[in-house]
Amino acid sequence: MTSPASTPAHLRLGVCDYPEHVPEERWAAYAAQQRDLGLTYVRIAEFAWSRLEPAPGQYDWTWLDRAVGTYHAAGLRVVLCTPTATPPAWLVRAHPEVLAHDAQGRVRDFGSRRHYDFASPVYREHSRRITRVLAQRYGEHPGVAGWQTDNEFGCHGTSRSYGGASAAAFPGWLQARYGTLAALNEAWGNVFWSMEYSDWSQIHPPHLTVTEPNPSHVLDYARFASDQIRSFQAEQVALLREHSPGRFVTHNFMIFESGFDHYDVAQGLDFVTWDNYPTGMLEFFAPPGTHEDVKTHYARTGHPDLTAFNHDLYRGLRRDPDVGTGFWVMEQQCGQVNWAPYNPLPADGAVQLWTAQAWAHGADVVSYFRWRAATMAQEVMHSGLLRHDETPDRGFAEVAALNKAHYPLGPVQTRVALLHDYDSLWAYDLQPHHAGTSYWQQTLTYYTALRALGMDVDVVHAGSDLTPYAVVVAPAITLVTTDTAARWEAAVQEGTRLICGPRTAFRTPSASAWPTGQFEPLRGLIGGHLRQYDSLRPGLTQAITGGHVAHTWAESYRPEKAQTTHHYQGGPLDGQSAVIRQGGITVIGAHSETLIREVLREALQEAGLDPLDLPEGVRLSRRAGQTLLQNWGPVTVTWQGRDLAPVSAGMTR
Amino acid sequence: MTSPASTPAHLRLGVCDYPEHVPEERWAAYAAQQRDLGLTYVRIAEFAWSRLEPAPGQYDWTWLDRAVGTYHAAGLRVVLCTPTATPPAWLVRAHPEVLAHDAQGRVRDFGSRRHYDFASPVYREHSRRITRVLAQRYGEHPGVAGWQTDNEFGCHGTSRSYGGASAAAFPGWLQARYGTLAALNEAWGNVFWSMEYSDWSQIHPPHLTVTEPNPSHVLDYARFASDQIRSFQAEQVALLREHSPGRFVTHNFMIFESGFDHYDVAQGLDFVTWDNYPTGMLEFFAPPGTHEDVKTHYARTGHPDLTAFNHDLYRGLRRDPDVGTGFWVMEQQCGQVNWAPYNPLPADGAVQLWTAQAWAHGADVVSYFRWRAATMAQEVMHSGLLRHDETPDRGFAEVAALNKAHYPLGPVQTRVALLHDYDSLWAYDLQPHHAGTSYWQQTLTYYTALRALGMDVDVVHAGSDLTPYAVVVAPAITLVTTDTAARWEAAVQEGTRLICGPRTAFRTPSASAWPTGQFEPLRGLIGGHLRQYDSLRPGLTQAITGGHVAHTWAESYRPEKAQTTHHYQGGPLDGQSAVIRQGGITVIGAHSETLIREVLREALQEAGLDPLDLPEGVRLSRRAGQTLLQNWGPVTVTWQGRDLAPVSAGMTR
Amino acid sequence: MTSPASTPAHLRLGVCDYPEHVPEERWAAYAAQQRDLGLTYVRIAEFAWSRLEPAPGQYDWTWLDRAVGTYHAAGLRVVLCTPTATPPAWLVRAHPEVLAHDAQGRVRDFGSRRHYDFASPVYREHSRRITRVLAQRYGEHPGVAGWQTDNEFGCHGTSRSYGGASAAAFPGWLQARYGTLAALNEAWGNVFWSMEYSDWSQIHPPHLTVTEPNPSHVLDYARFASDQIRSFQAEQVALLREHSPGRFVTHNFMIFESGFDHYDVAQGLDFVTWDNYPTGMLEFFAPPGTHEDVKTHYARTGHPDLTAFNHDLYRGLRRDPDVGTGFWVMEQQCGQVNWAPYNPLPADGAVQLWTAQAWAHGADVVSYFRWRAATMAQEVMHSGLLRHDETPDRGFAEVAALNKAHYPLGPVQTRVALLHDYDSLWAYDLQPHHAGTSYWQQTLTYYTALRALGMDVDVVHAGSDLTPYAVVVAPAITLVTTDTAARWEAAVQEGTRLICGPRTAFRTPSASAWPTGQFEPLRGLIGGHLRQYDSLRPGLTQAITGGHVAHTWAESYRPEKAQTTHHYQGGPLDGQSAVIRQGGITVIGAHSETLIREVLREALQEAGLDPLDLPEGVRLSRRAGQTLLQNWGPVTVTWQGRDLAPVSAGMTR
Repeated sequence: MTSPASTPAHLRLGVCDYPEHVPEERWAAYAAQQRDLGLTYVRIAEFAWSRLEPAPGQYDWTWLDRAVGTYHAAGLRVVLCTPTATPPAWLVRAHPEVLAHDAQGRVRDFGSRRHYDFASPVYREHSRRITRVLAQRYGEHPGVAGWQTDNEFGCHGTSRSYGGASAAAFPGWLQARYGTLAALNEAWGNVFWSMEYSDWSQIHPPHLTVTEPNPSHVLDYARFASDQIRSFQAEQVALLREHSPGRFVTHNFMIFESGFDHYDVAQGLDFVTWDNYPTGMLEFFAPPGTHEDVKTHYARTGHPDLTAFNHDLYRGLRRDPDVGTGFWVMEQQCGQVNWAPYNPLPADGAVQLWTAQAWAHGADVVSYFRWRAATMAQEVMHSGLLRHDETPDRGFAEVAALNKAHYPLGPVQTRVALLHDYDSLWAYDLQPHHAGTSYWQQTLTYYTALRALGMDVDVVHAGSDLTPYAVVVAPAITLVTTDTAARWEAAVQEGTRLICGPRTAFRTPSASAWPTGQFEPLRGLIGGHLRQYDSLRPGLTQAITGGHVAHTWAESYRPEKAQTTHHYQGGPLDGQSAVIRQGGITVIGAHSETLIREVLREALQEAGLDPLDLPEGVRLSRRAGQTLLQNWGPVTVTWQGRDLAPVSAGMTR
Repeated sequence: MTSPASTPAHLRLGVCDYPEHVPEERWAAYAAQQRDLGLTYVRIAEFAWSRLEPAPGQYDWTWLDRAVGTYHAAGLRVVLCTPTATPPAWLVRAHPEVLAHDAQGRVRDFGSRRHYDFASPVYREHSRRITRVLAQRYGEHPGVAGWQTDNEFGCHGTSRSYGGASAAAFPGWLQARYGTLAALNEAWGNVFWSMEYSDWSQIHPPHLTVTEPNPSHVLDYARFASDQIRSFQAEQVALLREHSPGRFVTHNFMIFESGFDHYDVAQGLDFVTWDNYPTGMLEFFAPPGTHEDVKTHYARTGHPDLTAFNHDLYRGLRRDPDVGTGFWVMEQQCGQVNWAPYNPLPADGAVQLWTAQAWAHGADVVSYFRWRAATMAQEVMHSGLLRHDETPDRGFAEVAALNKAHYPLGPVQTRVALLHDYDSLWAYDLQPHHAGTSYWQQTLTYYTALRALGMDVDVVHAGSDLTPYAVVVAPAITLVTTDTAARWEAAVQEGTRLICGPRTAFRTPSASAWPTGQFEPLRGLIGGHLRQYDSLRPGLTQAITGGHVAHTWAESYRPEKAQTTHHYQGGPLDGQSAVIRQGGITVIGAHSETLIREVLREALQEAGLDPLDLPEGVRLSRRAGQTLLQNWGPVTVTWQGRDLAPVSAGMTR
Repeated sequence: MTSPASTPAHLRLGVCDYPEHVPEERWAAYAAQQRDLGLTYVRIAEFAWSRLEPAPGQYDWTWLDRAVGTYHAAGLRVVLCTPTATPPAWLVRAHPEVLAHDAQGRVRDFGSRRHYDFASPVYREHSRRITRVLAQRYGEHPGVAGWQTDNEFGCHGTSRSYGGASAAAFPGWLQARYGTLAALNEAWGNVFWSMEYSDWSQIHPPHLTVTEPNPSHVLDYARFASDQIRSFQAEQVALLREHSPGRFVTHNFMIFESGFDHYDVAQGLDFVTWDNYPTGMLEFFAPPGTHEDVKTHYARTGHPDLTAFNHDLYRGLRRDPDVGTGFWVMEQQCGQVNWAPYNPLPADGAVQLWTAQAWAHGADVVSYFRWRAATMAQEVMHSGLLRHDETPDRGFAEVAALNKAHYPLGPVQTRVALLHDYDSLWAYDLQPHHAGTSYWQQTLTYYTALRALGMDVDVVHAGSDLTPYAVVVAPAITLVTTDTAARWEAAVQEGTRLICGPRTAFRTPSASAWPTGQFEPLRGLIGGHLRQYDSLRPGLTQAITGGHVAHTWAESYRPEKAQTTHHYQGGPLDGQSAVIRQGGITVIGAHSETLIREVLREALQEAGLDPLDLPEGVRLSRRAGQTLLQNWGPVTVTWQGRDLAPVSAGMTR
């Protein structure tokens, strides 16, 4: 398994290919061309079930035998996939109970992809069956380097199903979690609106209620659904381990996917991969509040911090020292996508820009999507390295010109961490209290500040050991367990500077408020009280000392032993503390980009980390002793006496 | 029932409390603190069914006995509630037919509140049963001052159910109303698109039709649904009267709730109460067309005229001279709410501002929502008088500082009325003909003009006796019966000045146009003809003599005996009458704030009512010989030589 | 059928009337008044089924006998309708399976109109039955001039039903089209996401899929649904032909209706009619991207090119030389409508403006909607020639003042054609790749350019013989068959100038891309390759030589034998060809109004067609030797030394 012996010295490349989409006579030529382009890996067959098993139990391995053989003969390494993202029509029509239900109660029908309910016992059986036979046949094939499970869990809002198998399984999952209904009713606060249950079977998924359902109910449904994905994949992983010894197993995660706990789901994998579409991400996944002019400015590259954040997030999913933290980009955009409201061409140089950034943030392999543009079905307008007509598209030339030797492998080392976890994400977004904010918006505000200050950032689970870090930022960790609080306290005591955003530790594990309404598990550490929170509608602002201005959110504190570093001026919070600090921990209550940057800069300086002030669009990333300097904007920027051309990257000191 | 003997000399205060949400050991301390704060009333138990009857027929009175006893011992007066807004899970799962259906045909499931169909015979039986046992046990308890039925009828769009029990009951209701299908087909104009029915069972609720359903069908469904609420409540009221002699019965109505006829539903009550959330109202219920900058300007107080209108509306629901017209605010916001898109903190002084306004508009009791902020479930982010941690929140201090003696009780007396009724509201909004207008928008435009002119206003049913009033405004009474027309005519003949807005009396009782297309029942009175109506898209305007400019709507008239006071200039209506007057009645066809204010000012002057010109945010209200002067805006305003501080209130001459 | 002998010398007028909506005693007076107004035709009874057959099999002809007799006696010619747009309640409740299902899977219930599924065998039987008895009774009545089938096919999104009868019929339709599942799977590219079918019954309508369904699936569903409409109408037409010899049969089509192939559905008709609502069209059907200030500018007339395009489109539906190409406006707006978000009054003169334009674009009859405004049901706020009170409304006077002799009949003759077809419309909009563009938007951009250049335009099916035309524009014909390509090539070889927009010929008949990704069937003709397409988000632009700027879309080419006339400057397309030309064919890749106008102007000049440069709002149209000059704007415009008054029309040289 990714043993040190097999670790290459530098970045390697790959591609996603679909032999079943083209005439077989093209396969050899494609493989040769891929090899000539310097690619190492080819991922195949994640949507090929209907060709592998055209009828129940009738397997057709012949074509896949030849395809794998062709890549292998050309010296390429194959990443095979379990095809469970697309159960074929015969399966779905014979067993309609495998289909999921949307939040409106409608069955999500066959006819695209991801049409299944993770909790379906029937589907689980078919998932195990197809995984087993596939692993049995190809598990020890010399051309097969490893496996991808399924494809993009959660894509198209498929993490949660609101009926059928999931609805049937939910009460049992709750019973296992709570033991008694009394415990569940207490944890959820069901007395609130007489929502108390007296029988497990009374509990439905939290949808189609008259007004918003109990947030504790919703949070547990998110956990339940996440757990189904975890166990669904675990069944496949176990079979792949059994029948394909020595091969890696991974999964390709999604940009900002929020439907399940990625730390849990990543546990059984050797390493993780993710699918990086910078321009689509900007149009489709940019957090609320992203201005249209920002989107236009970065229309042809995506925003550097959105992509960087996802790299850092996925790099941090698996931190098992026996495994290493290298990750892959399994699908890297190499031309225009087709699924955003607008799908501009990437700028010249963008494919190299993205590839270099991926490397600098820790990717060991970057695999482009896809080899040749599809001529049929849903993705006709999506590009590949080759055009529809097999001529090289713009990205091809950029890949060909990459000198992989310039991108040595090695660890990303930083003393700055940003905390993240899915319980907090879910709890935060359940009751945002302001239509323009969200967990991701809040988190990215802090992340962007760190990157503008020139820092590399580890995105780590909020419950991690923080002592390795000099500076840790917790932008939106609203659900802090007592274990986590103890780890934070230990780290602060050992010298880590910890900066928390608003709402930190406000929620219990059930998404209630603590009886005190305080950031209860951190009260001693913080040395103060939460006082007020103010949801600032658009146009309404709150002044802060130092010339800062809060928008969106302003939270105030009553310090006990803590010191106030900034306070509010005027308005309902006049004179109250906006930022308090006790020893190594600082809490920032106000949403103000300038304030956040100022506080972070001072903390970094204190920690001796030499923050910079990078101009708009310019970013630094460091790996393996190299420092990558990039300008993502469409205009030349002068920085430290250097003119940085638009959409350019280079190594610096 | 609220006999003169029991009437206090001044405003009294109360609070909504939830003993079932906190440990019992806190109850006595809370009650003592409530008493010390000067509160008189505590409303409890409106959502407590699952604690009162944890299993079918197994009642648990012990906790409520102790809770009521605790308040009573502390000298507080308890307002008990029927808990029917939240039937428990065991009831709903045993009898799923009690659930309502939304307009999309989906069952509205258990898991929040108000999950029932008013027309369900099964639910009616349970409603009577729980009301009876509760009234039997507490009806004569010395600590119980009175009762609230259910909670906020219609909240979350629950007035109408579109399937199940309501769908089953609708044909019978229609048969009782019309007698024959011929009469119904004629009244609805069903010949129009072959919509004629030949059997009562063919008639469904008006939803999921291919295009808009017949507005007459929709109007009768609104009446049907309203009638279900009326009779649902009447069953509870009868039981409360029987088992709880000498106690009042009321209901807490909602801001701008439009789903049922409040005059009908209020009939069986002793007095009415309503729930006043000024900042949430501004964000959530402001009429279409309210500018975002207006919302920002009043973000921390709400708009004075939105709250004032609701006070005046609910004051006018019960005008029985044997009962008096005093009303309560049953739930008064005393900090930030949680249910609007943005939930800013109220300004310093806002709680006193709101309380004083409530008093000045006729409230006898103001009861704050809620005692302590909930630490669980849907309203974690909603404030109370106490914070989550039991420390006083900002509103607490404002309540403590209130001198109730400054707010003597007594009548609100005004000679100005504004007309309102629910048939007109429904009929107006069925075919608004302009996406930016509505009944409430139209009504509030006139109401705001009256308040800016310094007037106190009675909001009264359009069918009322108007002779007590000097000036009556009918902004949007589009459905005028012949009885109503006769009353208007009588009032005008006795000297009342009547000013009507556009579309007045345009509709028959079935929401058809009159065969003449005229304001038929008022033609003689008005002395002219309706000529044209123009729906002015945004950006399109229509000039009027006197320098006025119409937007949104322009209606023209052909005067017979009436005089034209303003006419249109240019455009399709060039030279046609925009405002006509015959004797005491004036009809304003144009939507122009300056024109409306000018016409109203002149009418008030004529009537000797001394209109003022109040600056933005400044309002006057008079009660019991006192005049309250308030500035609701966030800036100091100078008026008549006085500097009015932001968010301030005071008595004036 | 419309034999030359019966052709009048000039425009004739008509009206839509509803005798069943008014007391019978009004009929004779209305008919006399209609005759006096100079009307020839009266269309009746399209929604009268419940009066013709009040109970199953119980026909009531008496009233219709008298109504037809009354019109006939007054000298009016009656257009009778099959009443199938509104099956009565007894039919629907007895046979609920006739109802259609919306895309959300819900049954679209009785209670408005068009509540049926074209594919329902049960409804087909009733449709034939009511058509037969009606045709038998009135088919040879001397007062009956002809027939309208049903009413406005497709209105309210009724072209496609997503369940029930349509869902049941779809697999059989596919089997008839493809023969084998292998052929279908190949044509649709179902291998893409394992969407391959192994049994016809596995195929559902393309809705409620997890993400977008296969566009080939959607395209065939559109064709299937269109085919149901075609055969539904064909059954009625056959019966009308049988029982009503010598009478015409037509249908009234809808503004920009996109739900079926109008060329197919029009085949069995004698001529076509359409329903022209210029102000509603502007608010409701204006293509995406139409600025609000354009809507305000033309609020009282509609946009001249939107209405003109529909005239030209419907004129072109039936080009059978034995039949002639004259069409009718069956419903012509003559006052304000009620169904748009805003419904302003038409300008003074607008009814004459619209009538004159209709004539100039080839209408032989203009029939106003409706005689008297309805006093009941869904259209109370819709105007007619008479007001509710029977007094003439504004449009009446304009109709009365029309001198029909000024509008001689005769052909519209032009040497300029614009190509259109429904397969291209459907395919284009399935994957627009830019949220702000669409087939209609793209098509109208070119159409507007031609009209601003003073041209008359034939809108013709893309597969037509183009040799009669000097200049042909194909704005968005994305689906070009090999037959069509051969016709285009033949026309170019014979001297026709052909200008194509972007994406031309990009799609196969199954809406896949060609294996080459090229405008494959036209490659030889075009003499170049498609290179890139760029989806330009709002704010992102692309410069072009000649000072032009592309927005929305930029497509580049690699010329082989073609010449580049414009190329891109800067950006990802720098230096690439924006416009290429080979001989008589030009392809414009960039969406730039100025570029399009420049290229079209040069092509017209080359063809000797003398393009003009008409000011905003001014348009020319020519018929029968007359030239109509109109100013549609609300301001006076000076052109060629003449002052053109607002909203004015006149003949010119």
